[in-house]
Amino acid sequence: MTEKVEASLPDKEKNMSEWYTEILERGEVVDIRYGVKGFIVYRPFGMEIMKNIIKLYEEELEKTGHRPFLFPVVIPERNLRKEKEHIKGFEGEVFWIEKGGHTPLEERLALRPTSETAIYPLYSLWLKSYRDLPFKAYQTVTVYRYETKATRPLLRGREFLWIETHNVYTTGEEARAQTREDAEIFWEVTYKKLGIPFLHIRREEYDKFPGAVETYAFDTLMPDGRVLQIGTTHYLGTNFTKVFDVIIHDEKGDQKHPHSTCFGIGLSRILASILLIHGDEYGMVLPFEIAPLQVVIIPIYKTGFDNEAIDNYCMEIRDKLAEEGIKVVFDNTDKSPGEKYYYYDMRGVPFRIEIGPREYQNNTVTVFRRDIRKRETIDKEELLNYIREKSKDILETLRKRAEERLANAIVEVRTREELMKYVKEDRRRIFKVYFCGKEECAKEIKNELGGYETRGIPTDEEDKRGKCIWCGSEDAHIAYLAKAY
Amino acid sequence: MTEKVEASLPDKEKNMSEWYTEILERGEVVDIRYGVKGFIVYRPFGMEIMKNIIKLYEEELEKTGHRPFLFPVVIPERNLRKEKEHIKGFEGEVFWIEKGGHTPLEERLALRPTSETAIYPLYSLWLKSYRDLPFKAYQTVTVYRYETKATRPLLRGREFLWIETHNVYTTGEEARAQTREDAEIFWEVTYKKLGIPFLHIRREEYDKFPGAVETYAFDTLMPDGRVLQIGTTHYLGTNFTKVFDVIIHDEKGDQKHPHSTCFGIGLSRILASILLIHGDEYGMVLPFEIAPLQVVIIPIYKTGFDNEAIDNYCMEIRDKLAEEGIKVVFDNTDKSPGEKYYYYDMRGVPFRIEIGPREYQNNTVTVFRRDIRKRETIDKEELLNYIREKSKDILETLRKRAEERLANAIVEVRTREELMKYVKEDRRRIFKVYFCGKEECAKEIKNELGGYETRGIPTDEEDKRGKCIWCGSEDAHIAYLAKAY
Repeated sequence: MTEKVEASLPDKEKNMSEWYTEILERGEVVDIRYGVKGFIVYRPFGMEIMKNIIKLYEEELEKTGHRPFLFPVVIPERNLRKEKEHIKGFEGEVFWIEKGGHTPLEERLALRPTSETAIYPLYSLWLKSYRDLPFKAYQTVTVYRYETKATRPLLRGREFLWIETHNVYTTGEEARAQTREDAEIFWEVTYKKLGIPFLHIRREEYDKFPGAVETYAFDTLMPDGRVLQIGTTHYLGTNFTKVFDVIIHDEKGDQKHPHSTCFGIGLSRILASILLIHGDEYGMVLPFEIAPLQVVIIPIYKTGFDNEAIDNYCMEIRDKLAEEGIKVVFDNTDKSPGEKYYYYDMRGVPFRIEIGPREYQNNTVTVFRRDIRKRETIDKEELLNYIREKSKDILETLRKRAEERLANAIVEVRTREELMKYVKEDRRRIFKVYFCGKEECAKEIKNELGGYETRGIPTDEEDKRGKCIWCGSEDAHIAYLAKAY
Repeated sequence: MTEKVEASLPDKEKNMSEWYTEILERGEVVDIRYGVKGFIVYRPFGMEIMKNIIKLYEEELEKTGHRPFLFPVVIPERNLRKEKEHIKGFEGEVFWIEKGGHTPLEERLALRPTSETAIYPLYSLWLKSYRDLPFKAYQTVTVYRYETKATRPLLRGREFLWIETHNVYTTGEEARAQTREDAEIFWEVTYKKLGIPFLHIRREEYDKFPGAVETYAFDTLMPDGRVLQIGTTHYLGTNFTKVFDVIIHDEKGDQKHPHSTCFGIGLSRILASILLIHGDEYGMVLPFEIAPLQVVIIPIYKTGFDNEAIDNYCMEIRDKLAEEGIKVVFDNTDKSPGEKYYYYDMRGVPFRIEIGPREYQNNTVTVFRRDIRKRETIDKEELLNYIREKSKDILETLRKRAEERLANAIVEVRTREELMKYVKEDRRRIFKVYFCGKEECAKEIKNELGGYETRGIPTDEEDKRGKCIWCGSEDAHIAYLAKAY
């Protein structure tokens, strides 16, 4: 059983950081040796997964009427400064370009930390009438933030990949409905296709996106018990349309500022979540739909047997699967089967097909499922249907596992004493408590609970009311407390 | 015939610049009002075409074994300075980031003008053995050059989109063969799928990419008679692998520097070429495969007729086409048919289907082909096959037209006198001459011929020899002279 020994990674739950470093490197996902803090390289295998992820979100966005566009990476300083809250939020973390060649620029240019202030000046030119609305568009780009906190590959970088939508509506009601559609889009892909469960949360007032009226976020759970924000959606009211003079005339002919929203899909963090949530001690475990390699065929030769016949049998299977659009390879290199198992296990290939003399003679195939690590021998003719069926099962299994872990992490707590007791335990939790919403209380909590933060209000329980677990004030709302990345 | 009058754009051949400005704006391709010189916004329609173009090239690259990756947009100054010729070529046109937030950076960061100096330090970590080769990878990104020349949307910008490949081989022979594969890839998409003909040229020594051993380029012809470089491919020898310490051991176990190539596909310029080469006085003419909208269905109502029946008939057709994966809309807004024709003609929609009482009654459809501007009435049942067939014809027609224009622009000239005579004519040409390859001659030619430049050696006629048209020296090679963007 060489396979088992060689494949062992550190325990993900106990030592997430080491596990993660190993998988990024051995799985050739990203390289952290670029030499500039917070900037990483997406290696081919990592980029192939990323492109598959992007495709899923873009398809869902297009299905819901969003169209792609692309704005420059640079934002003139005067634009960035226009919305007061916005620049306050981003000023400390913007990269500035001040020179072109040897020439100082007339105006400093920021690398986009987010694109509202790039986009709205053009919206003021494009959108003139309620007939031009709704305007729904997105771009898939890299954004830049000069993080002063410790950076971690894919989880917190100075350059990261995301999709951002920027939608405009005549009324606030329609714009608010968009934030709900955003949540559905996010659910459709993140939960249903990638198997990543998350909490849908309204952030507290002091935690909003700079310039937003309301901020919603999607938090998922890491194996070490911390939560990770993997997406946000914001109702911006007329804050940006006012500042950038976006004026439309409505159906009655009145001039008004339209309402807007934005939605950020944190692609880098979503890739990290897939690795961290689904992976195991053998490497990545990837949902079939986003796996760069979906099936690998490995011949098991036997001395004295007609191994060419095995090869031909393998190639016949490979060609049949490839014809059906399945990403398949036949690996007949001279590595040992064990080495091959290690390699493809690490890369999360959902199905491994092993063909030896017995399979050849019986017209069968032995299929190894990466997620549950179980072998099954089936008739060759059933293979295609088997893969189609079981690939759904894989997703289901991964999603269920992840969902259970998330559910198990959440504890409802009603008193401060009880909370303090839990916090002292070894295990990190997500606490569901009553909280008053005051920033002072949030700060005290963070200080006294060793980093537990208020994460905001579960959207499905917004109207429940009770006593704040911290200050005891009445009319507090339900809120989550968690440690976060 | 309101249609004809409204749709009229300036004459493309006589006033290309005005025509181009109009089409970018009225067709909503890009917006030049971003407010930073050389930076433009891709509007949804333009970005949709761009994404379709990107898909074609990426598919072809993947078919030939290239894998995607993604490197940071920033390059540390010390990397950029390592290859002497390279930094000489780019130093004057790099954007520099010197600050993060309020903090000066320890080292200046350049926005990538091209990515060799970002990529090779990682190649020195990834590539250790001949078994790791060939390494074939690409990225689709924006690049940045602080152009001091006048910028023009898509044709010359300070930010532009491209695909860059960076391939590594054990031997120079294999690497040189890659530059030929690059040319095939470019041909497969640019010529065969986009209908854009080009000249495949080896650039003169003084015209090479900074750091290259050999530079090949693809020049196409603009309606105003200038040529436009839309792609390049370079054999880099061991110039970059040496400087960045990429060392592999070969089959015999010897240590050596591998050979490398790069290939740049100028996406922004290719989009411009499609607009400029195929477009006409009514707007864009797009090949079916890259058209964001492939078919539009327009109802022609008649007072007193059962117009609901027309609508239903239209919708039935729309649904059938959509089911087949065709991008189709049914436009029953209350604009006049003429307004609609104008709108969709401008956007290059390959097929317009007009449905009035007659079509409804006879179970037919009237199809208007955008490229030749001709109507035909056919049986409804034949529509799908008609579209499939004729979409190939459209590409054929566009390609043929473009190819004839390119062929007609080329004149073989043998004497300086003859050349001077042609240059004085109103019409711009591409001259095929004998040229000695000396930079002094090239400079004199440019000065004395009002901007005609040496563009290099046609790859299919590299070995022909004659007398230099300028200095008369023997053993000159065939070369093109042209005005260029």
